[in-house]
Amino acid sequence: MAHLICPGFMAAGVASGLKKAGEKDLAIIFSKIPAKVAGAFTSNKIKAAPVLLDMERIKSGISQAIIVNSGNANCCTGYKGLEDAKTMAGFAASNLGISEELVLVCSTGVIGEPLPLDKIQRAIPSLIDSLKPEGVCDFARAIMTTDTVPKSVSRQGKIDGKTFTIIGVAKGSGMIRPDMATMLSFICTDIDADYELLKKLLDKATQRSFNRITIDGDTSTNDTVIIMANGLSGAVIKSSEHIDCFRNLLDDILINLAKQIVKDGEGATKLVEIYVKGALSDNDAHKIADTVANSNLVKTALFGEDANWGRIIAAAGRANVPLDQSKINIFFDDILMVKNGMGCGKAVEAEATGVLMKPELRISIDLNLGNGCASVITCDFSIEYVKINADYRS
Amino acid sequence: MAHLICPGFMAAGVASGLKKAGEKDLAIIFSKIPAKVAGAFTSNKIKAAPVLLDMERIKSGISQAIIVNSGNANCCTGYKGLEDAKTMAGFAASNLGISEELVLVCSTGVIGEPLPLDKIQRAIPSLIDSLKPEGVCDFARAIMTTDTVPKSVSRQGKIDGKTFTIIGVAKGSGMIRPDMATMLSFICTDIDADYELLKKLLDKATQRSFNRITIDGDTSTNDTVIIMANGLSGAVIKSSEHIDCFRNLLDDILINLAKQIVKDGEGATKLVEIYVKGALSDNDAHKIADTVANSNLVKTALFGEDANWGRIIAAAGRANVPLDQSKINIFFDDILMVKNGMGCGKAVEAEATGVLMKPELRISIDLNLGNGCASVITCDFSIEYVKINADYRS
Repeated sequence: MAHLICPGFMAAGVASGLKKAGEKDLAIIFSKIPAKVAGAFTSNKIKAAPVLLDMERIKSGISQAIIVNSGNANCCTGYKGLEDAKTMAGFAASNLGISEELVLVCSTGVIGEPLPLDKIQRAIPSLIDSLKPEGVCDFARAIMTTDTVPKSVSRQGKIDGKTFTIIGVAKGSGMIRPDMATMLSFICTDIDADYELLKKLLDKATQRSFNRITIDGDTSTNDTVIIMANGLSGAVIKSSEHIDCFRNLLDDILINLAKQIVKDGEGATKLVEIYVKGALSDNDAHKIADTVANSNLVKTALFGEDANWGRIIAAAGRANVPLDQSKINIFFDDILMVKNGMGCGKAVEAEATGVLMKPELRISIDLNLGNGCASVITCDFSIEYVKINADYRS
Repeated sequence: MAHLICPGFMAAGVASGLKKAGEKDLAIIFSKIPAKVAGAFTSNKIKAAPVLLDMERIKSGISQAIIVNSGNANCCTGYKGLEDAKTMAGFAASNLGISEELVLVCSTGVIGEPLPLDKIQRAIPSLIDSLKPEGVCDFARAIMTTDTVPKSVSRQGKIDGKTFTIIGVAKGSGMIRPDMATMLSFICTDIDADYELLKKLLDKATQRSFNRITIDGDTSTNDTVIIMANGLSGAVIKSSEHIDCFRNLLDDILINLAKQIVKDGEGATKLVEIYVKGALSDNDAHKIADTVANSNLVKTALFGEDANWGRIIAAAGRANVPLDQSKINIFFDDILMVKNGMGCGKAVEAEATGVLMKPELRISIDLNLGNGCASVITCDFSIEYVKINADYRS
């Protein structure tokens, strides 16, 4: 767990009673000094109250703490919901002895129920008391909803001889699709960078990671990724070389977290990359990858370990992208399953079924038309997914 | 079954060995005289061989027979597949003693496997021998794949004192989504109308019916709707009043068949209409209805009889359509669940749960922005769906 420490940051997670059975459901990250901050938020037209609040507050470019609850999304809660989000930040601020404006708020859970502010208020003193540098593990656990495992990662880099650290935490298991989903992610670093640069790098990294995954095709009302940089390492981004160094690590962290989310997809048993190449444009390739990655027929076949490539090609065909059926090749890992739009026979299919038994695999679709390419990470679609989502609130 | 007779048409369905266990899998409709014909075909860029063949042949506006097999889609089968489709039509034509050009072909089943022509050839004589006016029931059964019940309907109308009949048959249970799906439908009528008019009315009726349903969001490579009109009733369409009379019955038949398909959706336990009104345009309303109707989270909640309106509003929010969260009302049948974007409380939710226990219900979403409206018929998403589709080919 020593790896999940970032100098100058402390974190904590406690049980406030929002979730059943004493599970942790209230979490906080705190920086010793105000940090540069940037964020990316859901594209859903319905936005939860804390998202609306954060989108305003983050404009200052400075934050010092993020308080997060699971078990309640504080979404579709009207004017009162917005007041509740502010009050929640206010509780944290007064207990931390900092300005309310420096506190961001995130919520995740059921939509449409009022936030039980009293429970949160009661739990905040013990939450603040338990802040510690190694508290990120508790934090990662307290933000989980249908997640089965906490998700975190860390990396270190060096600029001008000075070592800096980035740690990342995420939650998300259902309602996951490109353009972010019921997904929260928090990145802390002790590098020194201004918030415009942080925003730019965060947006790019998000495009390459959280916006390239899908579990069930739904997009949530609460998605948020926030990065805080407190500069305490003394490593300052001053050149394009420094930017590259930091960006590579940041991309790596976000891609790693995104994959952790798909692996923990509700009911998922497999992580599958849908890679499309040979399209007329990257955009075309992405449309096909996205359509295949979200096809329930493809995803149930993956669950059944059935090398049913007909469903893959049929999904590709409905993506509304130019293609020539007689030029399409499909690979399962390195095995050529479909050549020139036709199956390669039963023997090959048996080999492909072997690939499908692996926990991670890649399906490549080559349109043989141009140089456009894109990939989307998805998972299979199991009986367990339906069970989880039919019973979620009961 | 007397209701499923249309003067001048005969039909049959037999087992040829394409499906397991002696189930019927080869079917034919035959008109005593050449009939006017029109068709609508899949929008999928990947089209099965018989679809490509029919799209050519139907240009003549005249057909006399349609031969259909289930158990094999004859899709992604290359040049040979196209030859096979022609040969299959040829077998039927020579046994019927008519020109090959007057025979259309449809196939449905697994993609990418060669059509077992020998089995079809062997079965055709007994298929033709069993043609009879009341053979539509056998036909309807022989075109089924994962369908659990055959689907048919008939109506009668009168023009200038002359009674005409329309009968409709359909199959489809999975890979169903607007823009048609693994769905075949055949309409026979003894009215007299030219094929341009038939095409126009069929396209409109298809828009209102088969293109407004969804089961799993996938669109097939083989979708086909064909109407044949043999004119034997002596009822001739000569005025706009006649057109209205015929159109109303045709719309009714297609909507009825579309609903039968959703009711028999793979694993479906409920038929749910998603009705959106108050949008800025019909197109906006349709985008939202379609997004909600295809949301796995909404569909699993319907299966779980969970009045989880948060998932409905979240799906509406990601349809990329202008909306004002604080103006949205949501009804379950007549029960107002969400007012001005917020839930109406636990007591109402209990009532709404009662609505969800019904086998048919309507979810209305009022955006309160304009006059646009649209509806899409969907079903719930059950454990059974995953079981059916994980095991389909094994």
